[in-house]
Amino acid sequence: MVVEIIAVGTELLLGGTANTDARDISQKLSELGLHVYFHTVVGDNPGRLTQALRIAKERSDILITTGGLGPTYDDLTKETIAACFGKKLVRHEEIWTRIQAYFDGIHRPLTPNNERQAFLPEGCVVFQNDWGTAPGCAFETGGKHVLMLPGPPRECLSMFEHCARPYLEKFSKESIVSRQVRIFGMGEAAVEYKLRAYMERQENPTVAPYAKEGEVMLRVTARAATPEAARAMTEPVVEELCRVLGDVVYGVDVDSLEARVLTLLRERGKTLALAESCTGGLIAGRLTEIPGASLVFRGGAVAYSDAAKTAMLGVSERLLGLYGAVSEPVALAMARGALVQMNADVAVAVTGLAGPDGDGSGTAPGTVCLALAARDAEPVVHTLLLGADRRRVRVAASGHALDMVRRHLLGL
Amino acid sequence: MVVEIIAVGTELLLGGTANTDARDISQKLSELGLHVYFHTVVGDNPGRLTQALRIAKERSDILITTGGLGPTYDDLTKETIAACFGKKLVRHEEIWTRIQAYFDGIHRPLTPNNERQAFLPEGCVVFQNDWGTAPGCAFETGGKHVLMLPGPPRECLSMFEHCARPYLEKFSKESIVSRQVRIFGMGEAAVEYKLRAYMERQENPTVAPYAKEGEVMLRVTARAATPEAARAMTEPVVEELCRVLGDVVYGVDVDSLEARVLTLLRERGKTLALAESCTGGLIAGRLTEIPGASLVFRGGAVAYSDAAKTAMLGVSERLLGLYGAVSEPVALAMARGALVQMNADVAVAVTGLAGPDGDGSGTAPGTVCLALAARDAEPVVHTLLLGADRRRVRVAASGHALDMVRRHLLGL
Repeated sequence: MVVEIIAVGTELLLGGTANTDARDISQKLSELGLHVYFHTVVGDNPGRLTQALRIAKERSDILITTGGLGPTYDDLTKETIAACFGKKLVRHEEIWTRIQAYFDGIHRPLTPNNERQAFLPEGCVVFQNDWGTAPGCAFETGGKHVLMLPGPPRECLSMFEHCARPYLEKFSKESIVSRQVRIFGMGEAAVEYKLRAYMERQENPTVAPYAKEGEVMLRVTARAATPEAARAMTEPVVEELCRVLGDVVYGVDVDSLEARVLTLLRERGKTLALAESCTGGLIAGRLTEIPGASLVFRGGAVAYSDAAKTAMLGVSERLLGLYGAVSEPVALAMARGALVQMNADVAVAVTGLAGPDGDGSGTAPGTVCLALAARDAEPVVHTLLLGADRRRVRVAASGHALDMVRRHLLGL
Repeated sequence: MVVEIIAVGTELLLGGTANTDARDISQKLSELGLHVYFHTVVGDNPGRLTQALRIAKERSDILITTGGLGPTYDDLTKETIAACFGKKLVRHEEIWTRIQAYFDGIHRPLTPNNERQAFLPEGCVVFQNDWGTAPGCAFETGGKHVLMLPGPPRECLSMFEHCARPYLEKFSKESIVSRQVRIFGMGEAAVEYKLRAYMERQENPTVAPYAKEGEVMLRVTARAATPEAARAMTEPVVEELCRVLGDVVYGVDVDSLEARVLTLLRERGKTLALAESCTGGLIAGRLTEIPGASLVFRGGAVAYSDAAKTAMLGVSERLLGLYGAVSEPVALAMARGALVQMNADVAVAVTGLAGPDGDGSGTAPGTVCLALAARDAEPVVHTLLLGADRRRVRVAASGHALDMVRRHLLGL
């Protein structure tokens, strides 16, 4: 079964927005063992969309569209597909009820154009949208399958996972199991250098490295007749990777470094406090994105100014004057302040210069001092040089801070 | 002249990599006033690439390919295009000399497959690659123009700027200017409902709505002979949109709500402090992503636990006991505490239940209380119901908090 992804949206053709839906759906289809041969992007134009659909109908078995399902007049995907495949659009009452309830829930008035979203091709499988209002759907006609997903990435990918994947699984002849070995503190090139010969020898399972946001992930993918057999094949490979890489592996099949840290805190019955300067709330933001963070995360000070470091964390003005805000003694005082103020078991502090410009003190942009203080252990302090890109410095510093907590909790 | 961008590369179809070349080239083409009607992605497969080229030849005037120009066996773009357009590939001696010199320069051995890169269609305009080894080129045949660019984004975009842009400028009859009207506090459907008749009447400039992360953006796009004329045409439309929508428009051509808030703070010489509970550092993170935030942002408390609210912000245990953490009196006490603790001019506080689960107190997930305290004005307090999706609640709450600051600074 050949798959084609058709993204509908003039904004993708005007530039400024990348077609990340196609990227992410393709990845998921690969895991399902389905072959994607084409991506097409077409504007909010019924004529050109019809043209693209006709071509796709000829050369592909499964058409997945993204975008153009919203309530506004330029959202034309459903109407155009229905016309192209000879389907009638009918109002689906259960969707209409859901849309009305959704607007009740957020206390916003329901405008008449929202009703359009309740119209879908007759006889289709409805993909409920629990992440927005526009539902998706799937239907089959003449041996061709058409799936429609909304454009906003979060809605699109959630709906893919919960609705499109179950619909598509029946077309996948073999089972694919994919495992993720997550690494912090070793670059992609270094990981590849260490494992290249091993990775090249591997055919099934395959091992492929992906770099993202200061981390590396190794994806181990096995194909077999059953999910159980495929999973069993991944086990020795995952073990070998963990053995070779050592403690830079922070988890296998975990969501993120922050998820791993929260799990460790819960398992060990410890609470965490933060003192952030240059990361400006990024670490707290990463932790609190995860439901249940409140069980172990006490809170954090975003002590961006010297005054805030003194007021919220009790860092003395003398220390700030003597060493400057970006210094190991100040980082340590911040961590100790957070520990005491928030009555936590562990506290980590970050103070640095995210850049891109200097602060006039002679400290190089990208200099970051990190400190960890704990009730039952000696403090740890590091200074890192993380380059001159503001975003990169902040993301990397937040990763290092979380990794310090992980290492502390594991006694590494 | 209709343009189509064809990206060649199996890695784009396997997922994990987004087609950023198409995004960035499209943006540049828009600025040139050239219309991109399709993006196509096809794998490293001569048969399917030929098919895609034939379709593009029919429906477009200018074909721009990215990728598949490298030295390895799966780089087939040139050969396939040459065959499809009846062109012969010939070795270009000056390119061959450059490639040899390049490898001399980086002290790497020149492997035989590198010679392939010196072969280009006869009679083409050569696009020299000063950022890598694979050259690009352009040729015209039967009224159709074909441009080939390398795939790696840096090489692709540099070559576009220095070689493809001068080649394409002659086809550009008009200039396009695009303006962004940014809106917070009104949904996409409501915006459209208010403006539909107006938007439908608009042909040049056009007005199109985009929803993203709890905000709406209206893009106003004008075409004219010169950039100045196009810009002038946008002015009355932008004014009219701002007039109709009123103060939910937080800016025109600004980067984000947080950028607007930082600008307003700077203009008015005011400093800001934050007290975040359920947003967990998200607001601080958004503000501190912007260079120069430290000039006006004093800091914030991520007071996730009751203990942290008391320790860092001086919220009394009595108040917490009496009203509960998610209440207007506590929000106000948090804002006042942040104002005093961090010696700021304005402070905003957020306390709520992000969900997805309740906290046992009977408060509905999605309930968020916001308060603003200021040195020179009466406090403002709101309670909002933001639904049951944790991420959405947090993003929406952070937007509302920033918007409260904006409204306070503007006296709205």
